Order: sequence, then C-alpha cells, then structure tokens
Amino acid sequence: MTAAQPDLVIRGGTIVTAADRFRADLAVSGGRITQIAEHVAGGAEEIDATGLLLLPGGIDAHVHLAQEQGDGTVMADGFGSGTRSAVAGGNTTVLPFALQRRGQSLREAVAAYHALAEGQCWCDLSFHMIITDPTPQVLGQELPALVREGYTSFKVFMTYDDMVLNDAQLLEVFDVARREGALVMVHAEGHDAIKHMTRKLEEAGQTAPYFHAEAHSRIAEREATHRAISHAELVDVPVVIVHVSGRDPMEQIQWAKRRGLNVFAETCPQYIALTRDDLKGLNMDFEGAKYVCSPPPRDHDSQEAIWQGLRDGTFDLFSSDHCPFFFEEAGGRGKDNPRARTAFKWVPNGIPGVETRLPILFSEGVSKGRITLERFVALTATNPARLYGMYPQKGALVIGADADITLWDPQRRCTLRQEHLHHGADYTPYEGMEITGWPVRTILRGQTVFSEAGGVAERPEGTYLARGKSPRRL
Amino acid sequence: MTAAQPDLVIRGGTIVTAADRFRADLAVSGGRITQIAEHVAGGAEEIDATGLLLLPGGIDAHVHLAQEQGDGTVMADGFGSGTRSAVAGGNTTVLPFALQRRGQSLREAVAAYHALAEGQCWCDLSFHMIITDPTPQVLGQELPALVREGYTSFKVFMTYDDMVLNDAQLLEVFDVARREGALVMVHAEGHDAIKHMTRKLEEAGQTAPYFHAEAHSRIAEREATHRAISHAELVDVPVVIVHVSGRDPMEQIQWAKRRGLNVFAETCPQYIALTRDDLKGLNMDFEGAKYVCSPPPRDHDSQEAIWQGLRDGTFDLFSSDHCPFFFEEAGGRGKDNPRARTAFKWVPNGIPGVETRLPILFSEGVSKGRITLERFVALTATNPARLYGMYPQKGALVIGADADITLWDPQRRCTLRQEHLHHGADYTPYEGMEITGWPVRTILRGQTVFSEAGGVAERPEGTYLARGKSPRRL
Amino acid sequence: MTAAQPDLVIRGGTIVTAADRFRADLAVSGGRITQIAEHVAGGAEEIDATGLLLLPGGIDAHVHLAQEQGDGTVMADGFGSGTRSAVAGGNTTVLPFALQRRGQSLREAVAAYHALAEGQCWCDLSFHMIITDPTPQVLGQELPALVREGYTSFKVFMTYDDMVLNDAQLLEVFDVARREGALVMVHAEGHDAIKHMTRKLEEAGQTAPYFHAEAHSRIAEREATHRAISHAELVDVPVVIVHVSGRDPMEQIQWAKRRGLNVFAETCPQYIALTRDDLKGLNMDFEGAKYVCSPPPRDHDSQEAIWQGLRDGTFDLFSSDHCPFFFEEAGGRGKDNPRARTAFKWVPNGIPGVETRLPILFSEGVSKGRITLERFVALTATNPARLYGMYPQKGALVIGADADITLWDPQRRCTLRQEHLHHGADYTPYEGMEITGWPVRTILRGQTVFSEAGGVAERPEGTYLARGKSPRRL
Amino acid sequence: MTAAQPDLVIRGGTIVTAADRFRADLAVSGGRITQIAEHVAGGAEEIDATGLLLLPGGIDAHVHLAQEQGDGTVMADGFGSGTRSAVAGGNTTVLPFALQRRGQSLREAVAAYHALAEGQCWCDLSFHMIITDPTPQVLGQELPALVREGYTSFKVFMTYDDMVLNDAQLLEVFDVARREGALVMVHAEGHDAIKHMTRKLEEAGQTAPYFHAEAHSRIAEREATHRAISHAELVDVPVVIVHVSGRDPMEQIQWAKRRGLNVFAETCPQYIALTRDDLKGLNMDFEGAKYVCSPPPRDHDSQEAIWQGLRDGTFDLFSSDHCPFFFEEAGGRGKDNPRARTAFKWVPNGIPGVETRLPILFSEGVSKGRITLERFVALTATNPARLYGMYPQKGALVIGADADITLWDPQRRCTLRQEHLHHGADYTPYEGMEITGWPVRTILRGQTVFSEAGGVAERPEGTYLARGKSPRRL
Repeated sequence: MTAAQPDLVIRGGTIVTAADRFRADLAVSGGRITQIAEHVAGGAEEIDATGLLLLPGGIDAHVHLAQEQGDGTVMADGFGSGTRSAVAGGNTTVLPFALQRRGQSLREAVAAYHALAEGQCWCDLSFHMIITDPTPQVLGQELPALVREGYTSFKVFMTYDDMVLNDAQLLEVFDVARREGALVMVHAEGHDAIKHMTRKLEEAGQTAPYFHAEAHSRIAEREATHRAISHAELVDVPVVIVHVSGRDPMEQIQWAKRRGLNVFAETCPQYIALTRDDLKGLNMDFEGAKYVCSPPPRDHDSQEAIWQGLRDGTFDLFSSDHCPFFFEEAGGRGKDNPRARTAFKWVPNGIPGVETRLPILFSEGVSKGRITLERFVALTATNPARLYGMYPQKGALVIGADADITLWDPQRRCTLRQEHLHHGADYTPYEGMEITGWPVRTILRGQTVFSEAGGVAERPEGTYLARGKSPRRL
Repeated sequence: MTAAQPDLVIRGGTIVTAADRFRADLAVSGGRITQIAEHVAGGAEEIDATGLLLLPGGIDAHVHLAQEQGDGTVMADGFGSGTRSAVAGGNTTVLPFALQRRGQSLREAVAAYHALAEGQCWCDLSFHMIITDPTPQVLGQELPALVREGYTSFKVFMTYDDMVLNDAQLLEVFDVARREGALVMVHAEGHDAIKHMTRKLEEAGQTAPYFHAEAHSRIAEREATHRAISHAELVDVPVVIVHVSGRDPMEQIQWAKRRGLNVFAETCPQYIALTRDDLKGLNMDFEGAKYVCSPPPRDHDSQEAIWQGLRDGTFDLFSSDHCPFFFEEAGGRGKDNPRARTAFKWVPNGIPGVETRLPILFSEGVSKGRITLERFVALTATNPARLYGMYPQKGALVIGADADITLWDPQRRCTLRQEHLHHGADYTPYEGMEITGWPVRTILRGQTVFSEAGGVAERPEGTYLARGKSPRRL
Repeated sequence: MTAAQPDLVIRGGTIVTAADRFRADLAVSGGRITQIAEHVAGGAEEIDATGLLLLPGGIDAHVHLAQEQGDGTVMADGFGSGTRSAVAGGNTTVLPFALQRRGQSLREAVAAYHALAEGQCWCDLSFHMIITDPTPQVLGQELPALVREGYTSFKVFMTYDDMVLNDAQLLEVFDVARREGALVMVHAEGHDAIKHMTRKLEEAGQTAPYFHAEAHSRIAEREATHRAISHAELVDVPVVIVHVSGRDPMEQIQWAKRRGLNVFAETCPQYIALTRDDLKGLNMDFEGAKYVCSPPPRDHDSQEAIWQGLRDGTFDLFSSDHCPFFFEEAGGRGKDNPRARTAFKWVPNGIPGVETRLPILFSEGVSKGRITLERFVALTATNPARLYGMYPQKGALVIGADADITLWDPQRRCTLRQEHLHHGADYTPYEGMEITGWPVRTILRGQTVFSEAGGVAERPEGTYLARGKSPRRL
Repeated sequence: MTAAQPDLVIRGGTIVTAADRFRADLAVSGGRITQIAEHVAGGAEEIDATGLLLLPGGIDAHVHLAQEQGDGTVMADGFGSGTRSAVAGGNTTVLPFALQRRGQSLREAVAAYHALAEGQCWCDLSFHMIITDPTPQVLGQELPALVREGYTSFKVFMTYDDMVLNDAQLLEVFDVARREGALVMVHAEGHDAIKHMTRKLEEAGQTAPYFHAEAHSRIAEREATHRAISHAELVDVPVVIVHVSGRDPMEQIQWAKRRGLNVFAETCPQYIALTRDDLKGLNMDFEGAKYVCSPPPRDHDSQEAIWQGLRDGTFDLFSSDHCPFFFEEAGGRGKDNPRARTAFKWVPNGIPGVETRLPILFSEGVSKGRITLERFVALTATNPARLYGMYPQKGALVIGADADITLWDPQRRCTLRQEHLHHGADYTPYEGMEITGWPVRTILRGQTVFSEAGGVAERPEGTYLARGKSPRRL
C-alpha cells in the first residue's frame, strides 16, 4: 500500500508535546496529522520550519465573546474579531461562553450564541454554558440534554448581581453535574463580601478604579474558593477554580489537591504580568480602569506563588479570561461611560488577552527559565483539551489528531503594542511589554489561518466542536 | 486598723487559679474575697476544705434556657431548674441567650428574657443576645444601645431556617460589632449544605436520628468556620467559633490563630465524651435521638484532636451548650413528638449538659492526665470571665473578686445517673459514665448555694450582671 | 528522496508517551525510531501490536547488581541475570551502581564494575557511582573528571557502617556536585537513630526480622530527609531522595517542593505492595527476612499517601531498588547465614524487584484507576531518562530516539510466581500477587530482547551509556 | 491564734500572676509570702507600692557566668557582677551553667562552679549542667546521681568544636534523661553546616563580623531543630529548644507541638530587638562584633513571627542567654583580640542581656500591646519556675512561695545606656533603646536586693536551689 501524497508537510522543526521535544518532519492529510518522521515524502504544500517550534495550537479555554451586558456596555469583541485575534496569537481553538440570562431558557441561550458565532470564526470553538437561572426546567431537562449533546462544561458565578448563585443553587447545580458527568467551572469570589467592601469604600469616598482591587479582596476570593471546594467535596463532583489570582486561594486549592479532591485550577496572564498597582493608573486616575478585572491582579508575592503553582501542578490551565471592553470608544468603560467614571463598581470587569496569552507565558515563563517548554504546552493546549473533553482530537501533536499547529519562533523579540493586535479593544493592558518568543504561523486542521507574512486568513473556517466528558483526573 | 471578722473562712484547701495552685486559707467578707493567707482569723462561718480544691466557680458561657421554640417543642429547663442544675454542677455564673424572634425588637427580646429570669436564678447570670433579624432599627439603634448597657456579646447563626443570617447580614452585624466593641459568637454550620444533604438523605429513606450526623457534615461545619473567619478578617472584628466538634473546623481555627487573627474557639463535653455512633441508638432506632445536637459528635480521631486543642490553646473555652429537651415527656423530642419520629430533621437539636460539664472535663481531662488543673480552671472559669467582660469580678480567686468558689473533691468517684441530676430533662446522654472528681459545695458571693449534704439552697439568690467589653486577645 | 525500507515496523498498537496516547504504526531503522504514522510501509520485520500498548522501554534507575558485600553475603544477581530479569520485566535500560569501597579509588571502582558488566548485559545500562570515601583526591580530581565523562549522578548514604557519610562529608560532596553539575541521590535514613534503636531492641531481646522495621523508624527516615534537603538548600544543589517509604518523609519533600527547592523523589514497589506486617512472617518467624529492606515498608496509611504522591507529582520516579539476596541458598540471608538468624541487624537489606516493578505499578496503579497510563510512562521511563541525562535518546517514543519499546498487554492477567521470574534470587516477596497487565515483548534499539513466546534473547546486546547532565527541574 | 507581725508589708500595688491581676496588700514573714489581702496589718517594714506592679521576681533560666573559654577570652561577668546585674534588672533567680570540659568529671565541673558562685550571688541560683563528654562514667553514674541531687536539667550543643555532641551521643544522653526524668536543653544549630559555610565565606574573603550571620544560617538552625525534635520523639523525652531566632525553627517547633510532642521553646531579647543588619556595624566594620551571638538575630519577618509565637504559646520561655564579653577591654572580642579581628569565626559568641531582658520584653511587648501582662509573667517567671522544677517556691506570687517580688513601674521611661548598667561588659548591644516600664525594686525572700534609690544591696544573699523534676507539659 502506498500512502497518498500529504496535503501539507512541515519540515525541519522541533515538535513539542506536553512531555517530549524532538526534531521531525510532520505530514498532514485531510486536516489530520498522518505522519511524523525523520523524513516525510513531499507534500502538496511544504513549510520550512527550521529553527521553529511546532506546538499544538493554543486552546484558550476561557474567553468571553459577544456577551450581552446588562448595563448597556458592549463587549469589544464578537466572534469575528475575537477569533481573528485568537489565531493571530497562536490559538486554534477557543471556548467562549453561552450565557443564560435570567428568565431565559438555557437551550435558547445556547442557540443564540450559536447564531452569533455561525460562520464568523477563524478558529474552532465550543461553548461552555453559564448557568444563571437554575430552574427545575433547566436542571431537570435542559442541562442534562445539553450535556449529552456535547456541552459538557458550564460555569457558575459566586458573585455579580445578575449572575450569582447562592449556596443552595450551587449545590443543586453541582449535583446535576455529578449525575450527568459535566464539569463545573467556578468564578470564586464572595459576593456579599465584595458588596460590603464596595459600600464601605464608597462611603469613604474611595471610588477610583484602584479601589476595585480592595473591594475584590484576596479574602473574598479565598473564602469563596474554600466554599466552592467544600461544596464540591460534599457533592463529590470535580470543579475548576478559574482565574485564580494569588497565594490565598492557591493555598486552598493545594490543600484540596493534597487531600485527593478532584479540584482543578486555572490562572491567567494578568496575574503574572500585572499587579494591583497598575490599577492606580497615573496618580489614582481613570487610566487604572484599563486593568479592572475580577479577581484583580494582586502583588509580587502572589506572582511568585503563581509561578511556583504553574511549575508544580497547582495549576492545570493557563487561559486568558479574555473579556474586552473599549476604553475610549462608546459602549465601553471609559470616555463614554459616565457612570463608570463616578465609581469603580460601574467599570465593566474584564480585559482583553486572547492574543497575548501565549506570548506572555512563553516570554515570562519559558524564555526566562521559569517553566519548561513541555509545561507550557501542557498548560496552554494539552490540559485544556483533556479537561474539556476534546482530546486527542485537539491539544496534541499525535497521529490522527487535528492538524492544529502553531509555528513558534522562540528567539523572536518584540514589544507589545496595541497597533499590532487584532482584537476589538482599543487598548492592551500590556502596552510596551517586551516579549521574547512569538507565534509566526497558525495552522488549523492543516490550513494556515494566520501567518506573519500573510496576516489572518481571508475567510473564517472555524467549526463547532461537540465535546466528550471530562476526566476526574488529568 | 483592725480587720473585722470575716463572714466566711475556708480553711486548709488548695486554691487553684488558671496559673497557680497553693495551700491557703481564704476569707470572704461582703460577698468578696478579702484575704488569702497561711492563716486567717476566725470567720462567722467556717468551712473545712482539707483535701479539697478551691476552684473559681464554674462559668458556663453557653447555655440555652427557656428559649421559645417555633415548632411547639418546649425546652426542658427554664431559669429555675436550669440554674439549680448549674449550681449542683459547680457553676456560679451562666450565660444564657436572649433570643430575638424575627420581627421582634431586640430590646423586647432582652426584656422578655429578663422577665423570665427575674427571681428564678440560683446562680448569677448575664445574657448573650441572639440576632436573627438585623433590621436597620436593630443594627443602628438597639444593638449599639444594648452593648453600651452591658449586653456586650451576641450570637449569630449560619444555619436553622428561623435564625440563619446570610453573608450580607453577617458582614453587617460584624461591622456593628467592630464599631461597638461587642463580641460575636458564631454557630458555624453551612445552612444550604445541611439542607442539601438532608434532602438527599430523605430521598434515600435515611431518616433515622443517626443521619442527623451525616446531614450536619464535618464539611459543612468546616466551610462555615472558614467563612466566618474570613468575614471577621475582612471586617477586622474578633469572633468566637462556638461548639467546635472536631478536626476539620479546628484546622481552620488553628490556621487563623497562627496568622494572628482574633479568633477564639469553644468546645463542649459532647465532643470528647460522645461520638456519632451514639446516634445509632440500638440498631439505628429512635434512642439515637437522645444525642441529636448541632454540630453532632464526630469520631475518635476528632476527640483526640480536641484534647490536643484543649491543651495547646486552640480552644479558649469549654462550655456545655446546654440545650435540653424531654425524651419521653410531652413537648420534647420523643414519644409525644410524632413528627420527630418521622425524620431526623424534626428532632429538636440539643442535649442537656450544664450540670455534667465540669465533672466530665475534670474526670476525662485532669484525672486522666490529659490537661492540667490550671488549664481546667482557665477553660471553665477564667477565660470565659475575661472573654465575656466579667473579669476580675468573676472567674478568679483573687482579692476583691466575688467569692464564687467551688469546692472540688478530686478523689470522689461516681457514676453519672439521671436520677442524681437536677436538670429538667428526663434523661442524660452520659448515663452510666464513670467519673473521678466532683464538686461538693458551690459558693456564690460567699453563700453556699449547693452542697452535697444540703442539696440546692432554698431560695434563688442569683443576680444579673452587666458586662464590660471583651479584649481582642486573652 | 525515498526512505529505505525500515528494519522493523510495529503495527496497530497504541503508542503511549508521558503526555499522549494514540493509535499509529511505528517504524525503526538503525535502532532508532524513524516514523510514526497512520500507515507505515512494510518493514524487514513486522510486529502486529493490535490490542497492545507501545510504551517507552522501562528505565529502572535504581538497581543493585553484583555489588560486593563486606559481610560475606553474595548478591543474588550479577549483570547477566539481573539484566535478563530486567528485560523480562519490560525494561530496556537499568542504572546500577558502581560502589566505591572505602580506601578505593573511585575510578578503580567504576572500572571494576565496567569489567563485571562488560558483555553481560541484556539491556542498556549506565552507572551511578556510590561515594563512600570522599577523599580530596576523589572530590578534587576523580569525581569531576568522571562527571565530565558521563557519570553524572552519584549516590550517598546517610546510614550503613561501611558507607555512611557524616554531615561535613555530605556538604562537601554536595558542593562538588553543584560545581560539576552532577545529581546527588540520597539514601536518607539517620544512622545514629537506627543504631540507637537497634541496640535498644536487642537489649529487649527483640531480634526477629520484624524489628528491622522498628529500628529503621519513620522518624529516622523523616529526620534524614529533612537534613538532606536542608544541606541541599544550603549548598543550592538538586538532590533526589530515593526509595521514600511513606507519609513522614513525603511531608518533608512536599514542603521543600512548595518552597521551590530542587528536590526530586523516588518511591518503589515495596512501599505500595507490602507493609511492615509482611516482616512478621508467620508468627514473627524468619520468613519475615524475605521482606527486609531499607527503608522498610510502612503501613496502609503510608501506602495511601504514596498513591497520592504518585498522582500529584510529589514523586518523580518509580524504581525498583532491586537488591536481591538468596533466602535458602548459601551466601544469602537465610538458611546458610547463621548470623542473620540471630538478629535482624545481620539480615542483608534488600529485596528483588527489577522484573516485577512495572507489572506491579501498572496493575495496582493503572488497572485499578489510581494513576493514568501517561503518568505510568512518566514515572517509569520518561522522568528517569530526563532526570539522569539520557533524554531524548531514552525514555521517549519520539522520532530519533532509540527504539526501546515495550509491548504491553493491558488485559493480561497472571499471578506472580517465583518460578516464572528470571532473577537470581530464590524467592519473590510478591509471591501470589494477582496482576492485570503484563509486558509481552521488550525491544531494545529495534531488537527483540524478550518475548513471551521466545523468552530472553540468546545473546546480551546491551551497551553502556555515557550520560549528559541533569536538569534542575523536570 | 494571732498572726505575728509580718516582717514586710507591701501596700497598694497591683499583683500580677501568669493568670490574674488585682489590687491587694501583700505580707511577708520568714522570707515567704504569708498574706494577700485587701488590708494587711502593719509590718516591721512597709513599702508603698501605689501605682506599681508586683511581679514574681524574674527568673532568667539561661545565663552564662564565669564560664571558662578554651580560647583565652574571659567572660565579662562572674557570679558577682552577673547576679548584681540580674537583680538590677528585676531578677531574683538565675540559672547559669556548670560546664563540663572534655575529659573532666561532671561532678568536678559542678563542684567547680559551686566554688566560683559560693558567697558571690546577689540572687538565688541553680545550675543547669552542660554535657560535653558523655562518657559511660558520666552517663551511667554521675549524671543519674546529680539529677537525683537536684541538678535536674542539662544542656547539650549541636555545634561548637569543643562542645558539640554527635547524633549517637545526643541519643544516648536523651535516653539517660528519659530514664532519670531530667530535662534536656538543646542548642540547635547544625555544626557541619556552619563550618561548611564558614569555610566558604572565608574562601571568598568574607570575614567581617556580619558574615557570622550568614555562616550561622537559618537553614542550619532549622535543620538542627528538626533533628533534635526527631531524636526526642524517637527516645520519647521532653526537650527545650533554647534561643530560637526566627520563623524557620519555629515552624518545626509548631509542627511538633501540634503533634503533641513534649517540645518546649525559648526565645531571647536579641531576636525581637536586633536584626542581622546590626552585625553590619558601620559599613561592615568591627562594630558589628558587638552583636555576634548564636544563633544570630535574623530579620523583621522573623521578629514578627517571634511576637506571634510569644503570644500563642509557641514559646514557653523568654530568657536572656546572657553571655557577655568585653569589646574594648583585654580578653574580650575586640581591641585586644587580634585573632577576632581577622575573621568572624574567632569572635566570641554571646552578648550581655541579663539586666535588660525584662525591660525590653515589657517595653516592646506589654507597653506596645503585643502581649498581655499576664503572658509577660508566664514567660519570664512562672513558666521557667515550673519547667525547671522550682515551682511553687519560685515564680509565683502565692501563699507559701518565696517572697521574690519585683516592683515594676509600668510608666517609667528611660533610654538604655551602658553607663547605667551593672554588668561586667563594657557595652550594651541595646545602647540608646527607648524603654517604657522599669523595675524599681527587687525583693529576694523578703529582702530588698536592689532599689532605684539604694542601688544593689551591700552583701550577696543569694542561695543555691536544688530543683525538682520537670513536668512533661506546662
């Protein structure tokens, strides 16, 4: 039997997996990886990857796109610009959220986001659901059905007026997740503690964006983390604590992991590249609003703790929590949002990051010797794929997997500038950051969807992925 | 100047304080201790205490008397029988609760309990308040005023349908406590977790009293303990975690103490003398209802942890959480409570213990060499007095203090039997327990209110104590 | 360019790495892996691996072969039988020790072991050195030179009369390791504590083999682990704590890892498959001598701790500590060793295990769902290769690596029996153990060195490996 | 019966014990406390203590007086000046050491120190022994006999060339202590680690006094602390870890206490009032030698940890480790010690502090609100008395106890100056420190041995105390 000519051959690069790195040629046929060898026969298309790394395409398991805001603000990225930005940043899959509004059917919510995404995506995607209204209808019928259809993960919030679930609801939702084998992601910040502090700060006239970081205290995050873990332990269901900001919640997670509980954890670029001091802007002015996200960045001690956690397995995932708002343009957090200027509590929570996630972790982590290259791959591609039921189709450079490959130049140096980015937001919180290591080409199922030379591909070719169930352990 | 003849001289005993023990005579005049000396001149009354210990009268800082039950059950002790039982068990002061019903003015609640107690008490007493309805009126006016009048501590519940405060309320209440310098006692069990488990157990047909111990899980207690500590840390207010049942919540308390937070902790006889297995009764029958209290007793590992905590300062207080219900008689948990027999959730929570608290701790702790005699005094008298603002009037055998003295025979052996006890309940959960060490005479402000020979005094002479503020540290 | 026909093609199996698993064909040319593909053209030799796993050949990084015993006992395995046993158990590389006798030149010791191994080995091998006499000559000249020649790791002992280094020596040796980039393996048991306990036990007449487990206490192991870690921290050198037996030393290792120290850890089959009770034999008789090793197996709680540590990254390595002695035959620990029968301290320390290591971990770990297959590969092949400077030549199924492949039947069930094993010892401590999962064929650089059908290959083809330096982090 | 006129009456002060504080008069007869009362009849001598505290006379359980130095240096205090300094600093009892020289009989050592002390002491005293040569004669005969004669505690060193015991010796000595019921004090610093670092620093030319603090690293102290605790756990004997300098060894002690081990701990003024930066002197000059002691002071984080430990019971004792050397005068560490100027390792280890211990802890602790007054008494008098077998004769203001009383003015402010001190050293490391709270009169068995007005008493009246056995728990 003779193998047909491959559609694509990538030659001379170094293939990196979550465990291994080695020089090899790689061939793609029908969108899948079909050969990895010392030498592969000529392909219809050939790419010279000499000096480059071949990484599994980045999977950003935590992005917010086109989400409706109750307050009239507009998210700066829809599925189009968001996924263009993703592929320009080395990603081939993103997992945005389908947000159930209160009073809304969960299935309708999912359908609505499908409609928004349809035909707009430059990379593959799948949806986490957000449950804000766990009615008997939702828990008894819609959620079980949707899980079986491949919506195998959903997020719950322990804060935000329009999304928060109380403990009884959390327990009920966890119980359904256990029964259906779905994975629960938890935004762990204590709602009442935040509101209490917010009111105290307002009463003291402390309304600048900086005080967002005090209102969203490390104590509130730690408490909610402990609470979420306890509820999950009681119900015996795995949970992911998302966007962990520092040492306090980490200690809870480490304690849980040492006890063998099925607790997973995610952190994000803002917690290694920013601190609460960034929220001060210039002399406590409104510039600080550019950095408002929840939980907020903490301090240098927490940054150190997070690096240790990225190394030692406290963290399983490194995602962006991309949640972009305009700073200057209408509908955003700034010039045209007079309410946001009166008090931090009106500033939309979230910052852009889907395009800069991989470069920041690579540069600060791999290039500076804090984490290995293999760990980088695990955190940004293989673990997200495994944990969210997409493995081995996604997240791995192995035979039979989708040919989602990022060509990475580990030596490339650049300075992060808003003008070079593809996201919809009108600023980046990382403006001026020096980076070593950059994705130079992004290949989705064998097709180049971004290259330095050619920019983003002309047409969106991303598809939707129904997902399998999550493992209880990675 | 010649000293007048003392009213009372106690000769030849060994005086024990929270730090010291020594042989001396002790003289009382005007109800206060006026001399401690090698030899004291003759008194109007003389007691020979040869071979006995003189301990500061026991202070039981956690008793429930005459509390209204929403469900038609009746508490087995009012102020009369409850305080008779207290003095028979070596106590000279008790701190029962003035429970605010929802919708009720806090001041009215306090007045109502004063009315119930008036003229009925065989020992001194003061009230903790229970806040169940923290309205602006209560928090803004009544509570501050009452604190200033000497009601300097109050309890909040994190569970029970008719008493639970949510996190927002807890934070508000804590904030008032901080401002007014009041001390907050917290019943730390997670309400929603308990209800969730209760429902699950009921669905599985597991309704015997034993399952109370599963519904009130160690996880729910640990979570609420962490939450209460976090709220207190955020607000910067001292709190007492009351009736801690075992290792899980203890770890949270130890963690808080190591970080220097002002967290105090109390445990009770049921957590060293009972285990969850006692709730099994005979073959999981209704006998188990005799041991239903919240939190429930745990296991032997937790008992060991508690002993370690009593020694090393994890625990500051040892109280009874006396909360008696009839087992056989009408209005209680048993024969005449058909609902309680259908499901554990209807069994009134609480067991009697004000009379057996000191003997159990002495016998299991001091006589068996687990704690020192001085630590016994600290846990049962000096610390409660200090923490609840009664020191040095109460809780100490020092010049000027109230002559509240318990004469203790450390060699006396007996077997605990319901028929010997003075409480109102119709059973004791400690029936048949072998005890070494027993209070043989209880002296309140110089008057004998109980003696083995004479029994309980004829008339109730207890008075009400307005209290000072609590220290942030013991 | 046309690829030549491969020497060997393995078809239809599931390739497993430390991160991934996938179905593919694999081709070998010139002893190295040259292709991994959906379909590979025909090879000179073909193996049908349908239903089998292709694992990186096992690397047993801790085996003792042909070591001279000062006391007249004879090790039951030389390089011939030891490596035959290794390949029969799925291994393709072993790392035995070149033991320096006191007074001996280190280089001479290395040469002597090379001479013993030359032409005798059925698998590849490399030597760790054992430093027992750190003279200036050894530390100043021999050791640096040997490290540069590829002997990049060495072991030191904190116990055993003829090998123990004192703290001054340990620190000196660690310092040389830091300077030369060598990796230090530490046998961490406190010598004086063991001798003290041994003397006490002997004085009490407690001389049965069982008391070995008391003499080699968990306290002595924990103390030495802490000490080794502290010395390594002071000198700033990575260390491997080998053959960790249970919870006590693990807590020290976890503490060190959380603080970011470069501490690695290894455990062994005896700590998951045996307990100290095995040393009791039948009614405390000499049968217990079959299980005497150091540190000794502990209890079920420690077994649970070790499983948790194998999962969560506390352990980096799973090795055998193969150290075989005869039980019945002359020169061993038993019938013909009258001294050993008089007191446990004369029983040679060590048990056989190179052949049973992989099956035991697979069966107890993977088959029973305690660890993932990928983690199995990491612990038994990829991590040892990385940590000891053999990666990517060894320990990985990647292009360019040596074609060291174990074909594993995950469904195969068998019972461990001495009569089926290939080691030199006359018993196995795991007699009768039920196993699910077994290596059915072992391929070394493309050559089958063991198969179920054919047994061990006729001629020894193993070669010596000079190794590179160790990473500071995995 | 009529009480005779007391020898001494102290009126109007506030008596403070380790648990209580109260206003009372106190009467002394025959050197013992005989009455404590609201009003005491007139005494032969009367002292007006209005506005003053009556504290149990300070017990400094760790002082070095007249110790022979092997290296030709001379200790700056003998028993005369040392005890004059002690009483001027509010102490009534000191526990210096009887140091066994190697080769010397322990009994001879004890006799020699008795001879030196005889008739020279202004306060009472008793000896700890120092065991440097645990021969069979010492362990088998002398030590048991001496313990029975009331020398119930001894110290061992884990460092210093002329005193260090190895692990085998430590274990043997611990074993004798267990058998005889003696208490072992441990100087826990790892000898070999210190020597290793010293050599490295010398090789790097880092010989200034400051580098003493690097040579005596926190790691070496932590390791030895863990080791000492482990040995004590193995042997099952109580130990005191003396002069604990900071967070690292404290964590080991806390871990041990949580596990219920009988480990006690002591800290000293230098660890709350100095930091390693003091050893820098002026620009790393020889002034730093004034602060050389072992272990050395650490950093501000460790100071915080120590305050927490003083509060929460991690520390049982607060002693001076008074060990004075001249700075300018001959025989000391400075001008006339040319060798000390060449390298830190020749600087005698130790600083003066017996006179400043109580004022520093009172001022920094009680006056600044970090510890309570009762805790001050426990740490400086009651606990040392209990732990070292002198209670209730010493360390307590109770009937029957020796009338050792320090009158303390809590409001007195002063600045520490060498010219005001009574010790033999020619400097104080605390020069210029601002103090609030000072001992104004020291009373030993009813006799004033120091007063502000009269200075130190004319004649030394201190006596030797044979001591009882130590409790396993305080």
